[in-house]
Amino acid sequence: MSDEREVTAAVLVIGDEILSGRTKDRNIGYIADHLTRVGIRLKEVRIVADDEAEIVDAVNALRACYTYLFTTGGIGPTHDDITAESVAKALGVPLDIDARALALLNAYFAKRGVEATPARIRMARIPQGASLIRNAISVAPGFMIDNVIVLAGIPDVMQVMLDDVMPNLMTGNRFQTATIKLMRAEGDVADLFAAHQEMYPDVSMGSYPSFTQTGPITQLVLRSTDSKRLEAAVMSLTVKLKVNRLL
Amino acid sequence: MSDEREVTAAVLVIGDEILSGRTKDRNIGYIADHLTRVGIRLKEVRIVADDEAEIVDAVNALRACYTYLFTTGGIGPTHDDITAESVAKALGVPLDIDARALALLNAYFAKRGVEATPARIRMARIPQGASLIRNAISVAPGFMIDNVIVLAGIPDVMQVMLDDVMPNLMTGNRFQTATIKLMRAEGDVADLFAAHQEMYPDVSMGSYPSFTQTGPITQLVLRSTDSKRLEAAVMSLTVKLKVNRLL
Repeated sequence: MSDEREVTAAVLVIGDEILSGRTKDRNIGYIADHLTRVGIRLKEVRIVADDEAEIVDAVNALRACYTYLFTTGGIGPTHDDITAESVAKALGVPLDIDARALALLNAYFAKRGVEATPARIRMARIPQGASLIRNAISVAPGFMIDNVIVLAGIPDVMQVMLDDVMPNLMTGNRFQTATIKLMRAEGDVADLFAAHQEMYPDVSMGSYPSFTQTGPITQLVLRSTDSKRLEAAVMSLTVKLKVNRLL
Repeated sequence: MSDEREVTAAVLVIGDEILSGRTKDRNIGYIADHLTRVGIRLKEVRIVADDEAEIVDAVNALRACYTYLFTTGGIGPTHDDITAESVAKALGVPLDIDARALALLNAYFAKRGVEATPARIRMARIPQGASLIRNAISVAPGFMIDNVIVLAGIPDVMQVMLDDVMPNLMTGNRFQTATIKLMRAEGDVADLFAAHQEMYPDVSMGSYPSFTQTGPITQLVLRSTDSKRLEAAVMSLTVKLKVNRLL
């Protein structure tokens, strides 16, 4: 019997600028690291354009499959920011000016002497029933509705929003990871490594090669939520490989 | 009447290590830049785990929707490299040792004094009917079958494979891009910019904000395959914004 609780997630990156190559995504890796640390398993990522039909389809496909869906991008004041309406449409709820969000924005605009233009007020539109996610940088909030967590695309803003929402989420058992680094080509150890995986089917094993000027490097990575099984698999593998364990 | 030919693509990144955060993807942005330069429109990206069912589902979903599907990752010698069999399964074709690939590998192993282990010979398994993609770095080839282009995950190797396969692909009309950089918040210009987009529905317009120590920056990006329409939209926008045009 296992008491393991698997909490899963997907990330949906929204933005033409990522698909054109103009902007290089920096959010996927950051969120991946963050989720891994708290024991949420990131299972899938998609990147789609600023296109309502594509966003709606992806939101509905992903929120049905995983515990949480995180989106990044498309929540600013300009016409190409259509994430809020797309998420509202996907979930079949109204999108109106939210009094809480409007109060936050108006206070911020007043303090900074910034005009509350119609475009800026758009950022107070929040799907009905959502909770707000605090934006400690530029105030316009993200939101969470059902299992969908809507974050900004600008990395600094995305990160403070992620910090705000994480304490509200379920987390699962963390993966423990061990890495064995070999100064050899992965082909040298691949048959041995495959046989080892068969002996420990419950420990996830991957091989990550790279080439350097001094020759090939192979990193064998073993992962498990059970530290004893991981330890056993690592010990046994290091003996077979005749290497010291390197973590 | 337009003689425009739209050539589209998706990228499927395959690998547990990207989803765990252990490895940060560097291929998506590179491929996006490359495709944009030659007039192929990247429309969607997915990242999935080293899981046959997930790879098969994603390959079949994406190859049906776009002119080309590029995959990266999972073509090495170890047991977690399952891209070739997954693509063969998705396309319903056999996967056998390919005589061309085997000859390449055996010549390389002989020259380098490397043993032709069963694991290394796995890298000669190519779906029936595929053409090979040259790997100028570590020889084990990628392949193209129907509209699916299977590349390595190691960025250096992926890049030489991409160079090899690109001349064989159809390309479309290239997007011309103009950028207007403003030292203002995007909220200041968002209403004007939205109205401008409505006047030029055939020119794609996006706004990309960032925050700096000296204040907000907004980059307005206009894109079109028709340089005259782009020029007209940019000229008219710079007049409305009372700025000099910055490209």
